[in-house]
This record gives sequence, C-alpha cells and structure tokens, in this order.
Amino acid sequence: MISKPGKKINAGIIGGAGYGGTELIKILLFHQKTDLSFVTSRKYAGTRVSEVNRFLSGLTELEFIDPDIEKLPEQPDIIFLATPHGTSMKIVPELIKKMPGAKIIDLSGDFRLDDPVIYRQYYGKDHTSAGLMGNFVYGLSELNREAIAGASYVANPGCFATGMIFAIYPLFSCGAVEKEITVVSVTGSSGSGELPKEVTHHPVRSKNFKSYKVLEHQHLPEIEKFFKGKFPGRDPEIGFVPQSGPFVRGIYTTVSIYNKNVTEEEIRNAFHRQYEKEKFVRFVESSPEIAAVYASNYVEVSFVYKKNFIIAMSAIDNLVRGASGQAVQNMNIMFGFDEDEGIQFPGMRP
Amino acid sequence: MISKPGKKINAGIIGGAGYGGTELIKILLFHQKTDLSFVTSRKYAGTRVSEVNRFLSGLTELEFIDPDIEKLPEQPDIIFLATPHGTSMKIVPELIKKMPGAKIIDLSGDFRLDDPVIYRQYYGKDHTSAGLMGNFVYGLSELNREAIAGASYVANPGCFATGMIFAIYPLFSCGAVEKEITVVSVTGSSGSGELPKEVTHHPVRSKNFKSYKVLEHQHLPEIEKFFKGKFPGRDPEIGFVPQSGPFVRGIYTTVSIYNKNVTEEEIRNAFHRQYEKEKFVRFVESSPEIAAVYASNYVEVSFVYKKNFIIAMSAIDNLVRGASGQAVQNMNIMFGFDEDEGIQFPGMRP
Amino acid sequence: MISKPGKKINAGIIGGAGYGGTELIKILLFHQKTDLSFVTSRKYAGTRVSEVNRFLSGLTELEFIDPDIEKLPEQPDIIFLATPHGTSMKIVPELIKKMPGAKIIDLSGDFRLDDPVIYRQYYGKDHTSAGLMGNFVYGLSELNREAIAGASYVANPGCFATGMIFAIYPLFSCGAVEKEITVVSVTGSSGSGELPKEVTHHPVRSKNFKSYKVLEHQHLPEIEKFFKGKFPGRDPEIGFVPQSGPFVRGIYTTVSIYNKNVTEEEIRNAFHRQYEKEKFVRFVESSPEIAAVYASNYVEVSFVYKKNFIIAMSAIDNLVRGASGQAVQNMNIMFGFDEDEGIQFPGMRP
Amino acid sequence: MISKPGKKINAGIIGGAGYGGTELIKILLFHQKTDLSFVTSRKYAGTRVSEVNRFLSGLTELEFIDPDIEKLPEQPDIIFLATPHGTSMKIVPELIKKMPGAKIIDLSGDFRLDDPVIYRQYYGKDHTSAGLMGNFVYGLSELNREAIAGASYVANPGCFATGMIFAIYPLFSCGAVEKEITVVSVTGSSGSGELPKEVTHHPVRSKNFKSYKVLEHQHLPEIEKFFKGKFPGRDPEIGFVPQSGPFVRGIYTTVSIYNKNVTEEEIRNAFHRQYEKEKFVRFVESSPEIAAVYASNYVEVSFVYKKNFIIAMSAIDNLVRGASGQAVQNMNIMFGFDEDEGIQFPGMRP
Repeated sequence: MISKPGKKINAGIIGGAGYGGTELIKILLFHQKTDLSFVTSRKYAGTRVSEVNRFLSGLTELEFIDPDIEKLPEQPDIIFLATPHGTSMKIVPELIKKMPGAKIIDLSGDFRLDDPVIYRQYYGKDHTSAGLMGNFVYGLSELNREAIAGASYVANPGCFATGMIFAIYPLFSCGAVEKEITVVSVTGSSGSGELPKEVTHHPVRSKNFKSYKVLEHQHLPEIEKFFKGKFPGRDPEIGFVPQSGPFVRGIYTTVSIYNKNVTEEEIRNAFHRQYEKEKFVRFVESSPEIAAVYASNYVEVSFVYKKNFIIAMSAIDNLVRGASGQAVQNMNIMFGFDEDEGIQFPGMRP
Repeated sequence: MISKPGKKINAGIIGGAGYGGTELIKILLFHQKTDLSFVTSRKYAGTRVSEVNRFLSGLTELEFIDPDIEKLPEQPDIIFLATPHGTSMKIVPELIKKMPGAKIIDLSGDFRLDDPVIYRQYYGKDHTSAGLMGNFVYGLSELNREAIAGASYVANPGCFATGMIFAIYPLFSCGAVEKEITVVSVTGSSGSGELPKEVTHHPVRSKNFKSYKVLEHQHLPEIEKFFKGKFPGRDPEIGFVPQSGPFVRGIYTTVSIYNKNVTEEEIRNAFHRQYEKEKFVRFVESSPEIAAVYASNYVEVSFVYKKNFIIAMSAIDNLVRGASGQAVQNMNIMFGFDEDEGIQFPGMRP
Repeated sequence: MISKPGKKINAGIIGGAGYGGTELIKILLFHQKTDLSFVTSRKYAGTRVSEVNRFLSGLTELEFIDPDIEKLPEQPDIIFLATPHGTSMKIVPELIKKMPGAKIIDLSGDFRLDDPVIYRQYYGKDHTSAGLMGNFVYGLSELNREAIAGASYVANPGCFATGMIFAIYPLFSCGAVEKEITVVSVTGSSGSGELPKEVTHHPVRSKNFKSYKVLEHQHLPEIEKFFKGKFPGRDPEIGFVPQSGPFVRGIYTTVSIYNKNVTEEEIRNAFHRQYEKEKFVRFVESSPEIAAVYASNYVEVSFVYKKNFIIAMSAIDNLVRGASGQAVQNMNIMFGFDEDEGIQFPGMRP
Repeated sequence: MISKPGKKINAGIIGGAGYGGTELIKILLFHQKTDLSFVTSRKYAGTRVSEVNRFLSGLTELEFIDPDIEKLPEQPDIIFLATPHGTSMKIVPELIKKMPGAKIIDLSGDFRLDDPVIYRQYYGKDHTSAGLMGNFVYGLSELNREAIAGASYVANPGCFATGMIFAIYPLFSCGAVEKEITVVSVTGSSGSGELPKEVTHHPVRSKNFKSYKVLEHQHLPEIEKFFKGKFPGRDPEIGFVPQSGPFVRGIYTTVSIYNKNVTEEEIRNAFHRQYEKEKFVRFVESSPEIAAVYASNYVEVSFVYKKNFIIAMSAIDNLVRGASGQAVQNMNIMFGFDEDEGIQFPGMRP
C-alpha cells in the first residue's frame, strides 16, 4: 500500500473498470490528499480491483462494488463518474439527492452541453436530466480555472475537445480567428475503450488509418459552447475531422486557419502569454509529439504561420490529460490542493 | 524465375537498392511485357539482388552493377531513376546523350517542376539541368494519361502529391475550389527510406505522431504547378501539413475546403464522373482506409459535405501508388501495354 | 478481372469470409489454372465478396452464397474447406456423397489426426466422422509430396505445425533427435481470426507478449503423428509452447535439442540436402526473419549448434504458408500444375 | 520541481543520456531520499536535461556535464554508471580513487563476471580492471539481498539475465534442474539503445521477429556465475536464444527443463515460497504478460508442468526491472531505505 500521512478526503469512482476508470484508480492510489473509498463496476462487483488489473496488485485491496447508490459504503467528498454517455445523466440526480455534500466530476459527455436539443442531435438520445445541465462547470483546467475552483459539479472535457481547445485558444485571444477553422485530430485505439470491437481489432488497426464521424463528432458542440461569447463577435465555425490511427495512446490535433490580418509575433505572444506559467503546458518550437506527452497529463502546443495559413498543433495523452488526469487536476483545483498533486508523473522515453 | 512468353521490352533501374527501387524490381520481375536488364547500386555493386533482398531469392539472378552510364550492359527501352533528389538531374543529361532512344521515368523530385527558382527554394540546391525541366511530363497516371502516352520522359509524382491530387481534382472540376485549401497528410515510416535515422527509430516512432516541414514541404509546388491554369481563375492556395505516423506503409490525406456555393450532389457527381471508369481508383462511401490499399497500386477517395465544409480524403500505399507502382503504370501507358499489367495485385487482408 | 487463357479446373471455397478464406480467394483469383466458382459464407450470403473485402474490388464479381451443399452451383473439381474445427467434420461426409468426384483440401484440424480419442483430448469434442479420418493425407507439401500427389483428400497442416516440422525434419533425418525436443513458437494476431476478441484487442495486443495453451496446444498431436514411425526408434517427445506476439502476420519457431552425438556438419548437410531443391524453402546462415517471408509462401530455416545445444529456427507467414498458400501448393501437386502456380509472389520489403 | 522534505543522499549518474540513464533520471527525480546532483553526457554536456528529454521539462533544471571525474561537482553518496560495456571498467578505478566514500552501481556488464578470460570471450575485449571484478556484488535484488545490503559496489544484472534468473531460481531450489536448460527470451527494441540502427529501423522492426547471438549472448556467463555452487552438484548447462520482437519495452522469457523426478506441487511450492513476500514479484497462474509489467519494476513469473516438461516463464520491463529500476532498488537496499521507494509506480493499462 502507498503511505499517505496527514489529512485526506474520500473519493469514490462510479464505473471504474474501463480504461478511464483504471487510470483514475491508479492516479488516486498515489494521490497524497485522497483516499479512494470505493469503485463500482456492474460487471466486476465482488472481484478485487487487482484481479481485473493485475498491474495494481499489492497497491490496493479494494473490491469493485455494485453501482447501487443506496448501498455506497460512506459519504464521499468527491465522486468521479467514469460511466458511458447516457449513464451519467441517470445517476447524477440520485447522487445529488443521496449525497448532497459530495462534489461530482463527470467524465462522460452528459453534462458538457447546456442545450438538450443539441445533446439529442449529437448523442442520439434524449437528455433525462436536462434541468441539471446548467449546473456543471466545464473542466478545461487551465482555461476555466476560476469557475472550476468554485464548482460543485464539473463536466470533464472530451479528449478531442481538450486537445483542440489548447491549440485554438491563443488564436482566439490574439484575434487570429476571423472565420472558419479546420481541425483534424487523430486518436489512438485506447480511445475506443476496453471492449474488443471491429475498429480495435489488432490485425486491422495496427496498419490502418481512417476518418470517422466526419463533421459530426459529438465533441464539436462542447467546443462551440466553450468559445461562445468568450471572444465577442467571433463565434467559430469549426469543421472537425476525427481520425483513428494505429497506436494506443495519444491525440494529435492539427488546426488550420487562413488569415492575412495577423502577424507571427502576435500569435507567438498569445501562445506565450497563455501558457508560460502553466506547468502542464509546453509551448514548443518544433511539432508537438505524442511520444513526449505519452501517459502523462502534459500538453504540447505549437504553431506555424506562413503564406497566410496558421497551423496550430497539440499533443495530449487521451486517457490522462484527455480524461482521468485532467479530472484529478480539476479535483485538485476544487479542493485547493496543489494543482499537480498526483499527476506530476512525466511520461517516459522511450 | 518467372515465365514470360512473348515479346518484351528491356528495362533498367538506376538506384535500385532503396525501398522504391526494391518495389520496382519486384514489380518488374513479374511484369509480362518487360525484362529487367540491369539494376544499379553504388553501395551493393557486385552483390546479388537476392542477397540484399532475401525475399527475392529464386526469382532473379541479377547482380547490382555500378551506376556508371558508360558501362551499362545494353540499350534499354526504358530506364527508371530511383535515385535521390539531386542525383537524377546529374544523370539525366548523360542518359539522354548515351541512350537517346530510351524512355525515362524519374521517381525523384528533380523534374516535377519547371522553374529552377522554385526548385531551389524547396529543394535547397541549384538545379543543374534546368534546361531539361520542361521536357518531362508529370506522371499522375489517371489524370494526365494522354500526355504520358506521348511522353519520352516522365517525372513520377511525389507520394504526398499523388494522394492529394486524387482527393482535390474532382473538387476543382465541380467548381468547389474558390479559395484556400488545407491539406493534412500522414505518412508511414517507409517514406523515410531504408537508412536508419532518428525519425524512424523504432522505440520512438512506434508510439509517436508529429508534423514536419509544416507549410514548406517540397511536394507543394508540384501540386500548384499541376493545377496551374487547369481550371482558369482558380489557382489554389494550399496550406499543406505533412505528418509522420506510427505505421510502415501508406499515406492518408485529408483535404478541407470551405464553400457555401456548391451542392453535395455536384461534388458527388464530380467524383463519380472522374473515377467511375478507373480500375485503380475506388470512390467509397465511408472513409478511405490505408488497410484497404496496403501494398497495392489502388487509391481510395471519398468526401463529406456538411455545414459548408467539404472534407475530401484519400488513401494510398506510398511505395506502390506513391512511387513504383505508378511508375510502372506510366510505363504501361507509354508503351501501350494494358494499364494494369504487373500491378493488378490487390493488397491483402489483414 | 484477371485474364486466364486456356483450360482451367473449377474450385469452390466453403467458409470463405475469414482470414484464411480471404487469402485463398485472393490467390485463386490470380491462379492461371483455376476458376473460382463459388465461395460460401453463412454470414455474408448474398453479399459481394468485394463488398466484404474492398481490396478485391474490380477483381471479382462473385457473391458469397449460403453453405447449403444441396444448392452449390456446379460440380467443382476441388473444394477448399476454410471452416472452423468441428465444422469440417460435419460437411465432409455430405460433400463426398454429393460431389464424389471432387477433391477436398480441409484447412481445419478435423482430419489431421487419425485417432478420435486424441482428437477429443485436444479439440474438446467428439469426432463425428471418425471413419473418414484415415482417408486424408497430411498436406505438408515439400515433406509429403508423393502422398499428396495421389490423394483425393488432404488435411492442410496447422500453422504452428508447419513452422515446426520444417525446422525439425532435418534434425530427425541426420539422427540428431535422440530425446526430448523443446519448441517455442510465436504467432501474430491474424492467427486468432477475423472476429475481435480480448486477445486481439489492439490497445493490449500491440504491447503484449504471452504464452497460451502451454504444453497442450492442438497442433502438437499432428506433429507427433507426422513423425511417428518415420524415423524408427525415435518418436519424439515434444514440449510445445505457443505464444502470441504484437504483430499481425507470421510465426517464428525455435526448436531446441540437446545432443552430444552429432556434428555441425551432419546437421548442415541434412538441412542442405533436404531443402536445396525446394524453391519455397530458404536455408539461411543467419536467423530466419518473419519480415523476409511476410505475406508469402516461402519458409526460412536455419540452425546453430554449440555446446551440445542444437537450436533450429524457422519463419513462415501463418496465413499463406501456414494456411492458404500451402493449400494451393497442395492443389497444384494434386492436379499436376507447376507447384508454384499462383503462389510465387515474394512478400515485400519493407 | 518535486517536493522532497527531510534528509537526502546525493546521487550522480555517469552516462545519463541513453535510455537507461534517462529512466534513472526520471526515477531519481521523484525519489524522496535522494537528490540527483549531476548527470554526465559527453554528447550533451552543457545542454539541459529537459531539452534532450522534453518530457522532463519543469521537473529538473539540471544540465548534462562532461564526464570529467576531476571536475564532478560534489562528493556524491552514490554513483550510477549507465555507461556502455568497456567504459565502466575504465571509469571505476578513477572513481574509487577520487571518491573513495561513494558507493557505485554499474549498469554495464563490466563487473558482473569475475573471470577476465570469460569476459574477453563474451565481450570481445580485454578487461582493464580485472583486479576489481571480484569487488562487485551481483545486484539481483530479491535473490541476493543480503550481499547487496552490505556492498559498496554493485554490478547491476543484464536485462535478459534478470528475466531468466527469476524464472529459473525456484526450479533450482526445488531440485528440478538436473540437466540442461533451454531459454528463449524475446526483447523489445528499446534494449538496443537510443541510437538508430538497422535492427531498430521502424519499417523493418515493426513486423519482424528474429534471433541473434544464438547460444553466445554475453548475459549467459553472468547467469552461470550466479548459479555456480549455489545448488551443489547442479551447475546448469544453459542454451540461451535471445530474440528481438516488434515491440518497444519488455522481455519475455521461456525456460524449458525436462525432468521426470519432480512433482507439480514441489515446483509450485518453490515458486510460492520464493516470491510470496516479494512485493515486486507476482507468481501468476496464467502466463506472465509484458503488458502487466510494462514500464514498471514488477516481475511476473509462472510455470506449467506436463508430460515431464517444466516450462517456466517470466515477464519484465527491460529498462526498469532490467536496468534502472533494479539499480534504484539496489540503492534502496544498500542505504536501508524502503525497498520500493521511488519505484512503486505500477505500469499502466493499456
């Protein structure tokens, strides 16, 4: 077990057997200000976490428990929902009723939007807790820090959305966004989750590359919402092309804007200003690299401006920064812990 | 050895030990209308081809010979140059003098442009045979067939350029290109050649993704030249982002155009019209996939049009369609052979 | 379509939608002495082969048909069964009754053994056509050629068994096998078939390596049977460890024997003698390499003898030499065609 | 920077720019009982560690310094040598003279043997500090703990040797080793170091599998030495086949012994007894998996006994347990720290 002297809060995870939940467990086991009290999994209830995740043997004695909210073992200070889209919206009202003091961080897409009509359009189902959509703060840690600090409920951003917003934000702030934006983003296979499926079948995936949900991926509206009104008169039109690549972890995002009315220096200053004090964000001269942020909470961004094209790029790990790492960063902000507590680990080489 | 009844032409390869040259040897060994007479390699002169390429054992007795043009064994009907940029432009004048009857297909970038100034800008060196630049026909087989048929000298297109032109061409022909185009293209590691280098070091490459030569890759000007004047009043502005992905073979290209003045049907018709009779080009409904064209001369293209964004995509194998396969297709066109002779092989699953 | 002048036999495939069946279709489409008359698939009946296998578009107009033997379209000269273990043994009796003149090559394990008790032990089910087990000849092409030439029914060897036998055979023939043999064999993910499952889930498989069915894999008894009595007094005891590695195609086999009573020269001579005239078998000085036989019907073998250990190694492509390629080679032998017809293609680099 | 309250020792790394050194830096930066004082690199002297290893940005301000022992900045308590074979033996005598109080852990092979003749035979060069060979304790942490605890100088085991010894040791202790042992071990590409070379060229490596240095790898004699005399009358004869596989991290080891005079229970008990209290060693029922120990200091072992064959298997991460992790574990033992300090991190899924 990991030694954790001093005072700690209690955390619980609902839906902890998937890749996002596993990453969350691993981070929280080492988090010095948190005790992980329970992890639910319908499929593995009664089985030890370290049996499902052999790599955690010796680090925890926890067993998965059934996600029955009535029977959760104790009043947690914070609950992470690592449940699929459509499940979180059913659980949240119960949680709020049963555990009114608990803060909530939802890793699904259910509370990232505030408009049930758009939710329906992109997620293909009706939102059953539409009244609560407005209660969640969008958890893009570095770019919404103040609101997160005061929030009880946080909607953790989508993995694609996270990579995209880091690349686009400085372009907005320096006025480089005057018209449409093209975004091409490629993700590794871990983004499709732990269940074997056609698209993650090794014989094919390991040498394939393709696009999917072209111009209709569900991470688009959360970005539009995030930027809406932030830079008056410049709500973006975004053409977003998600792609799957033959690797396991990481998202690489390429943003393209055409603009004659900006200088390289203005853009450079905007990136610099935005990220120079952020310990998790590296503004690099050359291209961001997935290998440099692999299995970490770090973000790399860069840009090139030439012949009126602005190309901004970012690289993140989809499971850490794109999900569980950022969720813990948000928890740190919400509870006033050091923002990098538990998520300082820096990836690896090679 | 492979049985080849009937009349055949003689072909030679200069610079045959790299990945492009190897693919060319393999194709020509099975080509029913061609005898492969010689293959040069400075490094491997005197060594059997099948010693350097164990997988060709039993299929050829050829030895690599020194690339001394004075000593080439016989008058070939066609010579393929699989030499690096900068080498072809030195060899071509000698070849033309020494073997005036031989047709030439150059796989390097040396004769794809017609302006030595632009060549200097993108290739970083002076063109030493600038006077011959205008003598080469651009070898994008399906889209320049007539000119190729009548050509003595063909400049084989760059791998990125090939993928890109197939995706963009129908957009031009239906009038969808009114302003700037963004192109993001990812290539496998075989595109970097057979010499080990940092960017192809397995421990890093196999989990990395990055961009390089952003907005300044040397395949850009050949595309600009190809489209220049073809569709009057619409010379494109192209922002081209080349990327390297963690796979071996293939190029996936994503083209983005913003245009309100076109219909989905017009675009669909343009793709259909352009490619319906082409046996090597598949216009697919879903995304192109590298796995579906892997190790073959086939091309997949598709598009999506939504909210004024047109996304056109293509997938090719960089070594076959992006180099040696298309070179042989061009030879077939130049000599009046069946256009698919020797390059019908269809990839594989998985 | 592929041009095929001259006389041809008719071939049919039962169970043609899996990886083995697909490879078979691809080979037969180009086979100059064979017309592919039908391919069955319960799942895809009524769908075009080229819809399921986009990479075959333009090469065939065939549709998958239902595997109802009563309705098979015409009397084929040869039928390939690319069905799973347990299915072949149900189909074969019907086939023999309905199409008495047709030769059969079964790619499953159902007819590789002659003892229903051992079948039950390794395959976990009763053999329902035990009476026919003795009617099938074991299709290890180079090492059972004569029997195959005269056979009506051939049981195509298992992929592991194929790799193993090529490495072990010369050791037997030179008397190096006096006691137990250890065999460690690693296979790529395509060996697990086309259906997504845990063991082929890309996020895990692409960085994993493990053993399975240690000392109890079902390919063991067919090897024991193959060698039984061949070298009197030396029936082998084989400890076989199958492993799965993070690649798609190929099987690499390592055989270890401890023997003080043999010389390096005797072993070398045995390998040389056995394989020098075989165009598909390369006896190499260094290690066999999967990359050198990738996607081809070729086999590489080698050995090292030092300090009384004999290490013999082989590399094959599991889907070609380990399944469909060898099946076609057997057909060529059975019908007196050139033995390499349709399977000369040599893999690729890289 | 990482917060480290309390008393700490000073550590230095000589040769810190390779993969082993990088992993060591990363571990020591987070090690709560150690300050990393200096890291040398001839190639990168004067460059910041975080410039060469972007993923360490923000975690250290250290610059690489020149490996001039006269100028090392301060008296360290421990020095790690992450230098290549042949370099350590030149540096060690100087270090001992200049910094007599410093403990040394050498990650190279220079001090693992005690016989310069055998060193010459396997490493191909004369040992220039043969007199010091006997002064180093072999650092197989769990199996040589007592000696390590009292040692000033530790020779860290080879990566292959580590995997192998964990699998073999219980077989010795239960008397299962009566005669020869076959070992087949496959390593990922990171084992070949950070310099691009033929064998780690991505286009080939990512689909290749081969053996190398068959029966003559330099990790063999250190195992023989380790076991020599430990189990009287049973010095092993080991046939060792190293292999390279298409993955980045990890070593999977398969050990085969033939023995009729042992029971499964005896073997099981031996494994259980040996490892039940070891937090870094997992004795598992199914196969060890590289994915389960990836990027961690953990070891998985298991065995199968059937028909007189004993197959013992192990999986480790070659850079952590096979090099830097075990080096830090040894330091922890030498200084009386918690044995898992700094190396508790558990790998990842996926």
